[in-house]
Amino acid sequence: MALKVMKFGGSSVADVEKIRNVARRVAREYDAGHDCVVVVSAMGKTTDHLVSMADEVSGGNPHPRELDMLLSTGEQVTIALMAMALENMGKSAISLTGRQVGIVTDFVHSKARIREISTERLSQLLGERKVCIVAGFQGSTENDDITTLGRGGSDLTAVAIAAALKADVCEIYTDVLGVFTTDPRVVPGARKIDQITFDEMLELATQGAGVLHNRSVECAKNYNVTLHVRSTFSEEPGTLVVKEIENMEDIVISGVAFRRSEAKITIRNVNDEPGVAAKLFTALAKKHIQVDMIIQNETLNQRNDIGFTVSGADSAKALEVCEALKAELGGSEVVCDRNVAKVSAVGVGMQTHVDVAATMFRALSEAGVNILSITTSEIKITVLIAEEQVDRAVQTIHDAFELSKTA
Amino acid sequence: MALKVMKFGGSSVADVEKIRNVARRVAREYDAGHDCVVVVSAMGKTTDHLVSMADEVSGGNPHPRELDMLLSTGEQVTIALMAMALENMGKSAISLTGRQVGIVTDFVHSKARIREISTERLSQLLGERKVCIVAGFQGSTENDDITTLGRGGSDLTAVAIAAALKADVCEIYTDVLGVFTTDPRVVPGARKIDQITFDEMLELATQGAGVLHNRSVECAKNYNVTLHVRSTFSEEPGTLVVKEIENMEDIVISGVAFRRSEAKITIRNVNDEPGVAAKLFTALAKKHIQVDMIIQNETLNQRNDIGFTVSGADSAKALEVCEALKAELGGSEVVCDRNVAKVSAVGVGMQTHVDVAATMFRALSEAGVNILSITTSEIKITVLIAEEQVDRAVQTIHDAFELSKTA
Repeated sequence: MALKVMKFGGSSVADVEKIRNVARRVAREYDAGHDCVVVVSAMGKTTDHLVSMADEVSGGNPHPRELDMLLSTGEQVTIALMAMALENMGKSAISLTGRQVGIVTDFVHSKARIREISTERLSQLLGERKVCIVAGFQGSTENDDITTLGRGGSDLTAVAIAAALKADVCEIYTDVLGVFTTDPRVVPGARKIDQITFDEMLELATQGAGVLHNRSVECAKNYNVTLHVRSTFSEEPGTLVVKEIENMEDIVISGVAFRRSEAKITIRNVNDEPGVAAKLFTALAKKHIQVDMIIQNETLNQRNDIGFTVSGADSAKALEVCEALKAELGGSEVVCDRNVAKVSAVGVGMQTHVDVAATMFRALSEAGVNILSITTSEIKITVLIAEEQVDRAVQTIHDAFELSKTA
Repeated sequence: MALKVMKFGGSSVADVEKIRNVARRVAREYDAGHDCVVVVSAMGKTTDHLVSMADEVSGGNPHPRELDMLLSTGEQVTIALMAMALENMGKSAISLTGRQVGIVTDFVHSKARIREISTERLSQLLGERKVCIVAGFQGSTENDDITTLGRGGSDLTAVAIAAALKADVCEIYTDVLGVFTTDPRVVPGARKIDQITFDEMLELATQGAGVLHNRSVECAKNYNVTLHVRSTFSEEPGTLVVKEIENMEDIVISGVAFRRSEAKITIRNVNDEPGVAAKLFTALAKKHIQVDMIIQNETLNQRNDIGFTVSGADSAKALEVCEALKAELGGSEVVCDRNVAKVSAVGVGMQTHVDVAATMFRALSEAGVNILSITTSEIKITVLIAEEQVDRAVQTIHDAFELSKTA
């Protein structure tokens, strides 16, 4: 008999029939003798609808505390309906808001951080053999104001509760079968990964293979919570996200992640002196521009090129910042390539395999894919390429590491 | 500078534009220097929508605790949007759920009774010149479970908060201009009443002139909270509901109430012994049948006719109960008249005017309206008549007491 935290996202509970479907699934686990905490998101497009009302009533500038008061109702609706569905199936169930479950956060509305979770009430209710249905994405401050946890908040609620309760597993139910070696729409031979490490999952998530939000994976890693990413609509096991994988060294690369529509911006010939990079990236952060890759190449005459990538949507804003700073940094010109994309090979195995980078570059070269920039981390190699070559590059890397083969 | 509790019902906050409209109205009061607590209901048909989802997910039998968890979100949405709208107008505002405002109820889900209201947080926030926006209809138990107050719950929240804060007035905003002498659709000359006593309001409300739910009027009466029933869509003063009215003796009758589609059921010749009525009305209550008038006439030979009225919708169920009990009560037959209606003249003035009943019966007689039964209370005379004669009877009584004339 296990203690399971099961998390279902908005598309899994989008209407009453889907809620009943999830309830049946939970009931089977309950009947098998497991203790179940179920974390749910708002139904389907509820949050979008609430946000649009908030924008309308406030001229696009809703008060943060009140926005949290508003948005938290979305999950509250789902927990009540889910508990009713289970009760109707003869299973003892009880719904709990973030506050009732004892999730205390800081005071930063709309992206609050969890400070602590008191497990007293949950443990007592589980001891009474009740299914506990918890509203994801929300908590409350010490002043008893409702807060929300920001993007990926429901996953985070599930992981944090699993950590607090020392649950055997935290199951994240989604509309896909698990984590794939790459996007099956690009590579038809993409394979579901059975096991992956937290670190690999983190790299894959940042690179756009976003089944799970990074905050949740980080939290799971910190508290060593076993995650199981699996499908709401299938009984098949999904992907286990764990600390370490047996025979880890046999697997070189776990997956290929990519992100289209990046823009690469370079300021040429900036002064080669301390503080240049700091000035540039502080100015970009002030405008809320999320910088992705940073590439700096040494050049002659104590002058440098400093470059970075941003999402295509942010490129115009980023260009403005660079043009405004160019003179101060001593740069000669700002250039922008709007049609680039990022492709990464991710795998803890590359730490013990010396030829990963060589294999990847050779394969890309043979496929005629030109590499514009390269960055690497401990478990990831990323190349910047022309956007139109993304599909070919992903397929090529996937083939080079034989990812379609089962491990 | 006054302390005002302002309550707006669902139709006054049915969409974002209406919420902004209400916010402007509140802002004017705030700018005039008044301290404002605003109590709101769920938007428009929100509650109906939530109830229908609950019925769907639970096979028509939602768990009471979970239904309260669900329904309370309706008001929570409105308070957040209302606070945003006010903040957007530059007025300092804060939304509060029933629990946050300190409304503690008993444990009876879906029709909880308020045990106490702690005014600490409200008083502090009002002291900071914040408009406090409170979710109507809800509270929470000592165990921290969410409860709802049942029908008329938002009015009750407003009145109870006004009582706890010793507010100067509790303004109930509706879609009518106030309380009328009778239904203007029946009597075109019906007049808005400027002042009415709690007791009269209670009698009018029970009789179907339901602007205000009785629980709220009773609560206002008990704590002597001045109510002001007025229109959301007009600046005109509405109807003040107060303890006593100056020159009260000049006004004989305040209004004429009526209810169509009643059914009168009589069991003939029941035993004239103790316990007969108790048995009958206990059996009816067990089937949740709301009995309205009760009429018992003494007859010959120690046998009685016992009769009562119920709403037309309940008549079939009530008939079943009577048929099942007839033999035990010694009755000879059960008769049912399904086409009756109730008309009442209400007024505290009748306590000091001896000829009210006579005037009313004479007028009805001259108009050719046949009276089937009569009951009276301290401040009300009610007659049962044929349903088809309701309009004529109401007009006749309204004319007889010259209710179209301003007082």
